[in-house]
Amino acid sequence: MEKTDVLIIGGSAAGIVAATTAKSFHPEKKVTLVRKEKNVLVPCGMPYIFGTLESSDQDQIPDSILLNADIGLKISEVDSIDAQNMICKVSENGNIGFEKLVLATGSTPVRPKWLKGAELENVSTIPKDKVYLDHFKAGLNEVEDVVIVGGGFIGIEMADELNKSGKKVTLVEMMPHVLSLAFDEELAIELEEVLRGRGIRLETGIGVREINGEENKATGVTLENGDRLPADAVILSVGYRPNSALAEKAGLAVNKMGFIQVNEYMRTEHPDIFAVGDCAAKSSFITRTPKPTMLASTSCAEARIAAMNLYKLSTVRLFGGTISIFCTAIGDLAFGAAGVTENLASERGFDILTATFQGTDQHPGTLPGTQKQIVKLIAAKESGIILGGEVIGGKSTGELTNLIGFIIQSKMSVDALLTAQIGTHPLLTGPPIAYPLIKAAELVARQQRSL
Amino acid sequence: MEKTDVLIIGGSAAGIVAATTAKSFHPEKKVTLVRKEKNVLVPCGMPYIFGTLESSDQDQIPDSILLNADIGLKISEVDSIDAQNMICKVSENGNIGFEKLVLATGSTPVRPKWLKGAELENVSTIPKDKVYLDHFKAGLNEVEDVVIVGGGFIGIEMADELNKSGKKVTLVEMMPHVLSLAFDEELAIELEEVLRGRGIRLETGIGVREINGEENKATGVTLENGDRLPADAVILSVGYRPNSALAEKAGLAVNKMGFIQVNEYMRTEHPDIFAVGDCAAKSSFITRTPKPTMLASTSCAEARIAAMNLYKLSTVRLFGGTISIFCTAIGDLAFGAAGVTENLASERGFDILTATFQGTDQHPGTLPGTQKQIVKLIAAKESGIILGGEVIGGKSTGELTNLIGFIIQSKMSVDALLTAQIGTHPLLTGPPIAYPLIKAAELVARQQRSL
Repeated sequence: MEKTDVLIIGGSAAGIVAATTAKSFHPEKKVTLVRKEKNVLVPCGMPYIFGTLESSDQDQIPDSILLNADIGLKISEVDSIDAQNMICKVSENGNIGFEKLVLATGSTPVRPKWLKGAELENVSTIPKDKVYLDHFKAGLNEVEDVVIVGGGFIGIEMADELNKSGKKVTLVEMMPHVLSLAFDEELAIELEEVLRGRGIRLETGIGVREINGEENKATGVTLENGDRLPADAVILSVGYRPNSALAEKAGLAVNKMGFIQVNEYMRTEHPDIFAVGDCAAKSSFITRTPKPTMLASTSCAEARIAAMNLYKLSTVRLFGGTISIFCTAIGDLAFGAAGVTENLASERGFDILTATFQGTDQHPGTLPGTQKQIVKLIAAKESGIILGGEVIGGKSTGELTNLIGFIIQSKMSVDALLTAQIGTHPLLTGPPIAYPLIKAAELVARQQRSL
Repeated sequence: MEKTDVLIIGGSAAGIVAATTAKSFHPEKKVTLVRKEKNVLVPCGMPYIFGTLESSDQDQIPDSILLNADIGLKISEVDSIDAQNMICKVSENGNIGFEKLVLATGSTPVRPKWLKGAELENVSTIPKDKVYLDHFKAGLNEVEDVVIVGGGFIGIEMADELNKSGKKVTLVEMMPHVLSLAFDEELAIELEEVLRGRGIRLETGIGVREINGEENKATGVTLENGDRLPADAVILSVGYRPNSALAEKAGLAVNKMGFIQVNEYMRTEHPDIFAVGDCAAKSSFITRTPKPTMLASTSCAEARIAAMNLYKLSTVRLFGGTISIFCTAIGDLAFGAAGVTENLASERGFDILTATFQGTDQHPGTLPGTQKQIVKLIAAKESGIILGGEVIGGKSTGELTNLIGFIIQSKMSVDALLTAQIGTHPLLTGPPIAYPLIKAAELVARQQRSL
């Protein structure tokens, strides 16, 4: 029987990071990654296959990342795990014995059974599957009207890319606003204005009653109020479910939402088996309640943490809960969020203060290419500790959101922000005298004093 | 006699931030700012007057920032400070009494007396002075050859802007490389290649012997090796000296380098007088040795800290020393640095590990507009605490450098980085599986383990 030291199941971001980190931290160990896909897509790049990029070939993670790091790669499906004897049964390669196993089995898009018409031929989801997406893209050539159900970030990015490529796009979101888990209403409205300004039709605050079809093909989408949207293609981006069947079959505990149970070392009940990424259970860093977050930011941190703790545990290398940090871009504007929204913080019982400052992402604002930059901070009222942040701005929004992410993860207070040195440059950041993040912190501090 | 509660002397970044923060934290107090300049330039925007912007009118800080915050503004020169009686003598406005005084008197470019020809008519410096710079710019019309002495960030930015506007520019730097206080050699070389690629002539590792002149006008610059560079205009950007004469005359202590002595609350020996910005003494956050840093990042943090401590001191609102954080941009590439370089850390006696990772600022790298992104980290060998970072990349370099700045100021270790959640997006950041900052941390950790 073939043997390896560290076996990773899953070849997307979490699996790759688990493998490369494992090899980096345990160079003497043999690390092997098994995945079923021949080619791996950059997951967050998938929407861009439909507009900005010419084809999915340009959106691949090269296997050289694994091979150059001396990581064994097997393209095959794992049928079962014998946890007791530490053996994986692999479809085409027989059995592989392991010392440590990392499950990075990912997630699968939901195709809701309760939704009439969801099974129709031209109703697609967005799985991490190159063959599927290539087929779907090829079928879009003669398509004019596209209805996208679900205004999460994949729905939004798909809407924008298809709109760019000349389709007539309608985006339907059940919640009052798109991306409402990440952004409070006033920022979500700005995002919606951008989408509408680019020609995308939005239907928010309304659900889908059914997908209408003729001869196995969708022809339209009927909303809950009876309105019917014409559709030559329908995309369902209504969520993903964790791929935890393999773990469950192996006797590992899975939580109510279907995620594999892990502790802060990302270790399952079995001391030699870890789970990371979309398939692994997690709680919110702030609210401490279970959260079905599926984001590369969280997955990759979990993967590094599991890999560092494989052979010896370290209390300074713990996963503290997801801060749900992410960012996206629509045209020249970008949107980022980390931690809790004002809405969620209030709902979960926090006593909070919030402040928003609008400035610019360059200075003086007369410089060509200047974008507005809006920063909203959500802070604990008493301690001033930052619980969440939302950003709208230009190209620097991603890293500015990451800065807020570090602030949240380090449990910094507004005082830490107000005493911080912030590098600024006319072409790269907001102005030193009105850097939006600092001004928002100042506005929070002002409210603290007037309590 | 006119009376105010908080009096600020100086109208550039530090003065403005001291004033607005003072008003925000002490809204019941009367805050007055005195400055001698009619118009205030965005200091870091000054080089852009010479290329990107049409005129210095587009590089002004509007007085509305002060006036809208209900801050009194006086355009006048302060002749002297009577510290005992808490009165400022102001040229045109008589005396002003104060409860608290903040000195934000700034700095003046050095025009070295020992350099023959430095006094010639067409030899300019870059002071924060709109009238002076307008006059200088007007005189550049018929100029072809410009020699810039001093390869700090102002020298570099002036070189690039004048080059853009069609001048033949030579930049002379005495040190082996430009910006060698901020960047280690291998990164400074990349910056030099960019400058050369844009048509700027560089003379590094060589000093200036004299500025040659005829009839009170500079005609060339002779280097130490005897080479003579033709010049129709010469710019001296060889440093700034603190404006501390007013403080010294008032009996306040000034250090050997000419900076006003302050403690961590930015308070001078006099409990009601504070000093911030270029005129105030500071030490390095890392090395704890005095440092003549003059950067908006440091100045504005000092200004906020002084303003917050005016009436009551707070031990969580201290200035911990300068991290010399800054960033600049040349063409499509940007350069940022925070904390110590490898070079300086070694010189000052630190036992360090360093690692550099080169990736991309978008992902996949096939996306249009992708730039390389290089991150170098300098960490303490034993603790893994991050002491410095250097970045080369695209538009997001400024905020990525700020992220590193927060990491340094929070004394985070590589473990904090390796467990951190980093938001990524194809168009906004490097890839989740190879985010350069994290990969550099991983390389540091690898070296720690092999010790």
